[in-house]
Amino acid sequence: MTQFKINPKLDLVLERIVDVPRELVWAAWTKPEHIVKWFTPAPWTTIDCEIDLRPGGMFRTTMRSPEGKDFPNMGCFLEVIPNERLVWTDALLPGYRPSEKPFFTAVIALEKQGKGTRYTATAIHRDEASRKQHEDMGFHQGWGTALDQLVAHVKKM
Amino acid sequence: MTQFKINPKLDLVLERIVDVPRELVWAAWTKPEHIVKWFTPAPWTTIDCEIDLRPGGMFRTTMRSPEGKDFPNMGCFLEVIPNERLVWTDALLPGYRPSEKPFFTAVIALEKQGKGTRYTATAIHRDEASRKQHEDMGFHQGWGTALDQLVAHVKKM
Repeated sequence: MTQFKINPKLDLVLERIVDVPRELVWAAWTKPEHIVKWFTPAPWTTIDCEIDLRPGGMFRTTMRSPEGKDFPNMGCFLEVIPNERLVWTDALLPGYRPSEKPFFTAVIALEKQGKGTRYTATAIHRDEASRKQHEDMGFHQGWGTALDQLVAHVKKM
Repeated sequence: MTQFKINPKLDLVLERIVDVPRELVWAAWTKPEHIVKWFTPAPWTTIDCEIDLRPGGMFRTTMRSPEGKDFPNMGCFLEVIPNERLVWTDALLPGYRPSEKPFFTAVIALEKQGKGTRYTATAIHRDEASRKQHEDMGFHQGWGTALDQLVAHVKKM
């Protein structure tokens, strides 16, 4: 397992303790039928998702804007450690093929915290400009709202 | 383990059976003291190498031209399956950080073949232009000569 060193100039981090067990957070992150319920902050929606849950496997989503425009995303899983850590990147396509428009690698780390979960999402960028772009796109609010939606969805599971 | 589908328009493949056991080929590929002995076709040399042999770990080399100019390369391991498969890419830096100049992902696959090894090196590119650039740089001859050097080195180990 890789140890990650956060670089504050290049990375963005959302860390929060949520009151749902990490096994359910893991399920919400790794099954398409759950992803479409919480992945994009409303009024955006995720209308489609395909997951091949192994290193080198596909992580594909399609997001739809409130105006009805679709935005496809294609990525590749790098590490899959059940209930503990999920790593994927858009710098590679499935099968590790370099992509046309690399932007970031995501690390979702889950730790048991009493009956809940310490949830840490890290976005890793190649340069300060990419980090700033992601921050200006609303990383903290967006990923925070998505996490609220994840928790609400998990409580209905 | 990921199954790789070769795309002849985007990928380059060198496949050969060599008369040394795959355990020694693996050692030659994964220890810096061996890498510097065979990795670059003479009269080029590899003057330095650093390896952190795990997914997300560093694969760094410095190549020196016959004129004495140094060319540093930095990559990241993706899959490490001893004696069987080694995958790394220059699309990511160590810790999976997207890189500035992604070019290719390499898959070294080793299969036991009698007392020897079926050696398959695949270079995976994002587009036809990158594939052609790599071919024009002398992929087949270069990787073939490096493999000759690897086999010669291994026989002296």
